[in-house]
Amino acid sequence: MDTTDRTNPAEPSVANAPTLRLALWQTPHPAPGDSVTMLQRLEQAAAEAATRGAHWLVTPEMALTGYLIDPARLVALAEPADGPLSAAVAAIAQRYRIGIVYGWPERHPDGARPYNAVQAIAPDGQRLAVHRKVHLFGRADSERFTPAPAVAAPFDWQGWRIGLLICYDVEQPSAVGALARQGARLILAPTANMLPYDDAPRLTVPRLAATYRVGIAYANACGAESSTRYGGLSLVVEAGGKVIAAAGRGPALLFATLNAK
Amino acid sequence: MDTTDRTNPAEPSVANAPTLRLALWQTPHPAPGDSVTMLQRLEQAAAEAATRGAHWLVTPEMALTGYLIDPARLVALAEPADGPLSAAVAAIAQRYRIGIVYGWPERHPDGARPYNAVQAIAPDGQRLAVHRKVHLFGRADSERFTPAPAVAAPFDWQGWRIGLLICYDVEQPSAVGALARQGARLILAPTANMLPYDDAPRLTVPRLAATYRVGIAYANACGAESSTRYGGLSLVVEAGGKVIAAAGRGPALLFATLNAK
Repeated sequence: MDTTDRTNPAEPSVANAPTLRLALWQTPHPAPGDSVTMLQRLEQAAAEAATRGAHWLVTPEMALTGYLIDPARLVALAEPADGPLSAAVAAIAQRYRIGIVYGWPERHPDGARPYNAVQAIAPDGQRLAVHRKVHLFGRADSERFTPAPAVAAPFDWQGWRIGLLICYDVEQPSAVGALARQGARLILAPTANMLPYDDAPRLTVPRLAATYRVGIAYANACGAESSTRYGGLSLVVEAGGKVIAAAGRGPALLFATLNAK
Repeated sequence: MDTTDRTNPAEPSVANAPTLRLALWQTPHPAPGDSVTMLQRLEQAAAEAATRGAHWLVTPEMALTGYLIDPARLVALAEPADGPLSAAVAAIAQRYRIGIVYGWPERHPDGARPYNAVQAIAPDGQRLAVHRKVHLFGRADSERFTPAPAVAAPFDWQGWRIGLLICYDVEQPSAVGALARQGARLILAPTANMLPYDDAPRLTVPRLAATYRVGIAYANACGAESSTRYGGLSLVVEAGGKVIAAAGRGPALLFATLNAK
């Protein structure tokens, strides 16, 4: 180990960056595969988030299709990153001039199990980045998804270098550290963290933010999906480890403003 | 996520297991490459540990050669798992009837950078298991070592299923969880954790032990190596998260007795 590893050696990427306002959409998953209803609800959330000044809206993991659904059905629902779901989200992003980070099952090019993926689409509708979940969590993931070999590189948006992680990824020091070392100042993390694992939002995420000097926005699901209950507690934590916004258990649109510093 | 993932679904492996007594050797690293002196010191530690009833002795990461030494020199010092260093350790193990887990640079079969490895040698001199560090930590590791693709499977010894991890590996929920899901009841973790990263022994290791219901023995170095200072604080934590033995900053031979339950 060497002393520089857990600090960020890259040039600060936010020196001239504007304030960044986030909206985290803590919401139940749709009925299995009901993306139509979910896109309508996403549009309402995007409209409200934009009205209240947010630059980016972050959904939970696998928000557009549902998550704990039949694995064979999930394969059928899977789409490439430039598929119809991405077009629908891009249209919403453009209409309300808000960036959207959303979760969906990404079709695997070889016909294997899909990736558990998230995509960032800018307010102008451009697809900026895709991250595929690296750290699958137990059977829920391993029955349904192909793990990605590595964390996706961060993307740049208006002076902010932003990384993407999914759920269990953001509990791994190695994943958070990899993004910090690439200069990320903020990680947007869609999740579907269930009860009783409140340790993740309450302890792990704030500590890793402080350790690696990177802000983290953790957007969890709420409500139930089959026999699983999601724990909510979405939060935004600054690079110093200070939690500046936190939701409860139920549905919420959570706002937080991050300052460049 | 599903509710069973962080508990251990495997058959308890210690149902009829005896009490297990550990000795953790918190010690400075040798002068670069001075394995001769280090093996003499290891023999003294093994003798004392055996006299005081320990079944296993655990050294720090890269204890036999030193760690933060010139990368080219490290390649020259690297040995296969059945090389001369392993023969010397096996002789000590047999002489004092004590198992030894030790760290050394393992020669890469393709001539690439060595692995940062640990090996478990039983009291009868048998080589039971090798783990190669998966999660390299910053430049200190990445300049010197090839990362392994996955955590090694646990090994069985007298009714105990035991996993091996190295330093930063044991801070990753994914690595600790992978061993727990394979039925490990105990993880032996040689480390070289430096100042100021006391969070690892103080917070992360006890929490992961409790989360994954697996005991962890964390054997750290102490003292200085080039400009790096190791933080000590070696500890043994039970599967319930209770710390049952903890060292300070300086050299120590730390004992702990784990009960099968």
